[in-house]
Amino acid sequence: TIYQIAVLPGDGIGPDVTVQAIRVLEVIRELDADFDIRFTEFNWNSEYYLEHGSMMPEDGLEQLQAFDAILFGAIGDARVADEISIWQLIMPIRKNFRQYVNMRPIKRLSGIDSPLKNESPVDFVVFRENAEGEYSNIGGRLYQGQPQEMAVQNTIITKTGVERIARYAFDYAQASGRNKVTSATKSNAIIHSMKLWDEAVAEVAADYQGIELESYFIDALAAYFVQRPESFDVVVASNLFGDILTDLGAAIVGGLGVSPSGNINPEREYPSMFEAIHGSAPDIAGKGIANPIAQIWSAALMLDHLGRPDLSTAIVSAIETVLGEGRVRTPDLGGNDTTEQLGTAIAQVVKDQ
Amino acid sequence: TIYQIAVLPGDGIGPDVTVQAIRVLEVIRELDADFDIRFTEFNWNSEYYLEHGSMMPEDGLEQLQAFDAILFGAIGDARVADEISIWQLIMPIRKNFRQYVNMRPIKRLSGIDSPLKNESPVDFVVFRENAEGEYSNIGGRLYQGQPQEMAVQNTIITKTGVERIARYAFDYAQASGRNKVTSATKSNAIIHSMKLWDEAVAEVAADYQGIELESYFIDALAAYFVQRPESFDVVVASNLFGDILTDLGAAIVGGLGVSPSGNINPEREYPSMFEAIHGSAPDIAGKGIANPIAQIWSAALMLDHLGRPDLSTAIVSAIETVLGEGRVRTPDLGGNDTTEQLGTAIAQVVKDQ
Ligand SMILES: CC(C)[C@H](C(=O)O)[C@@H](O)C(=O)O
Ligand SMILES: CC(C)[C@H](C(=O)O)[C@@H](O)C(=O)O
Repeated sequence: TIYQIAVLPGDGIGPDVTVQAIRVLEVIRELDADFDIRFTEFNWNSEYYLEHGSMMPEDGLEQLQAFDAILFGAIGDARVADEISIWQLIMPIRKNFRQYVNMRPIKRLSGIDSPLKNESPVDFVVFRENAEGEYSNIGGRLYQGQPQEMAVQNTIITKTGVERIARYAFDYAQASGRNKVTSATKSNAIIHSMKLWDEAVAEVAADYQGIELESYFIDALAAYFVQRPESFDVVVASNLFGDILTDLGAAIVGGLGVSPSGNINPEREYPSMFEAIHGSAPDIAGKGIANPIAQIWSAALMLDHLGRPDLSTAIVSAIETVLGEGRVRTPDLGGNDTTEQLGTAIAQVVKDQ
Repeated sequence: TIYQIAVLPGDGIGPDVTVQAIRVLEVIRELDADFDIRFTEFNWNSEYYLEHGSMMPEDGLEQLQAFDAILFGAIGDARVADEISIWQLIMPIRKNFRQYVNMRPIKRLSGIDSPLKNESPVDFVVFRENAEGEYSNIGGRLYQGQPQEMAVQNTIITKTGVERIARYAFDYAQASGRNKVTSATKSNAIIHSMKLWDEAVAEVAADYQGIELESYFIDALAAYFVQRPESFDVVVASNLFGDILTDLGAAIVGGLGVSPSGNINPEREYPSMFEAIHGSAPDIAGKGIANPIAQIWSAALMLDHLGRPDLSTAIVSAIETVLGEGRVRTPDLGGNDTTEQLGTAIAQVVKDQ
């Protein structure tokens, strides 16, 4: 099979780390005769916006739709309002391509220093609702410039929206032999949207015998992430809560430089998109010192989604090997090596496996 | 002066820890002839709800209004929906008494084990907007029972509401010689309410020379709390973000059993309310093993608010002394002592100072 991949390197360190993910994918192509992969690059980033006045062409989504998947770097540049870069590029892709699952594994890896004293293994997956909820552009400003100036922001969550992300989380738990799903809520204070969340998650849970549902308020859950991260298996959360919990989760296992994500359209009507959790880190862009692991791992999630879990595992275990050896380390890992050296080391292990 | 205090012990461990806070306050009364304090207890809790069908009498707020301050335990009982206990008791008090500042010190104390390897001192204060924002009961459910069932939740933030909490945070920074205020936002994704937040905070900041304003997205900020908690001075956050950040903050300095809070009406038109951050912990209620420090510390914040910072400091330093000695420790601190023993030990140090 030939897989057609749209590559959007984006801003800042996005291009630096994406090059390394492609390097690893090309090694895989050489090794496996059944696996072919083609990359088409799109320069839709903040630079593009400054030239064209929009983050992508009008038919951008149509162009992307033809691909099997999207490999996305990072977006963010001081010269362009976040609101524009996000709402003209990431949000339209996530929402229009019905990528309602944002899958974010949180795993403690040997070779990565955790900030926590607790040395228990941490290995859970957060499924973040990715298409609705708190990230809505419905709302507005009233009485601008007057004493009663206010903003109204509407969180809209649908029962269907909650059910499908909950079902995905429970299906994943079942398929991977994990026996607990933790739901993040705040229905004691955010009484309309979060109560529907609780009800819909509980209804889905009833269909899965042998998988326990536990539900915590987001404030308590954030504290538990620090106090006992080893106690989580699968976490399901709304768009905003999942956003917070995954950065926090990445921090407790030792850094955002290694945490991947997949924006998944489970029905495969549209391409799914894979991106590091970290941002564009403009301060170190182009210096060749960014850690490419999050992006390489995101490419591994992409292979899994494309139906090649074997190749995905080969990449993840190469990452674990290189980290475990500790020979090649970018500055964030306490070393002096470059983005390219770390990418090359991982590619080499993939080749040698 | 005689201070009239309304005491609402609440549910679960609320009464257990409140008794100890009162014990310490009574020692102070004996020591200082200028300071008198009277307690009036109200049994408005879940038990009361089960008997009377409401969390407080119809004229509850009027009754409370006559007091100089409110000492509040904790609320939460499996037999009463959180929505009821919260929205019929805590929320009406916070909102009607214009307690728009929720002040939550996050401080690392010797004698308390932190889960972090990083041993830097941590000492910052979170000012959480406490009267509006994400905690609104405006919204509802549509199409119940139909395929398109949805919930709409309105976050409403006013410019006045943001300005006053920001001003309080900056005033505090100025008065306490702290030179940085960190604002929690998510204006890249929650574009209406959080953009107004950003604008209003920046406008207030412009009035304070020499105090730096930094602004982070809530996801990144949650990660920074784990990665470099020593770098924060004063944090200002919306109702929901402040809720999450303070539980997280309490966790990184080693536990919720010691973290206090003040729900403050700065204009003193209404009584302010002081309560531990922790909840009612029904599993250990009545067993005499809850840690009373958060509640005793909350009483200290109350004394500060009542115009006696000297007495407030006396209590806080007694807490630090007892924790530092490590002789008397409740189970959450790794010991075998009781709530009463820890309360008595702190009261004794206050007396001996
Ligand atoms: C009980 C709940 C509504 C409350 C809140 O979220 O404000 C609590 O978590 C707190 O932090 O005081
Ligand atoms: C850039 C931003 C809108 C985005 C989000 O909050 O979804 C990012 O933080 C992420 O987690 O992918």
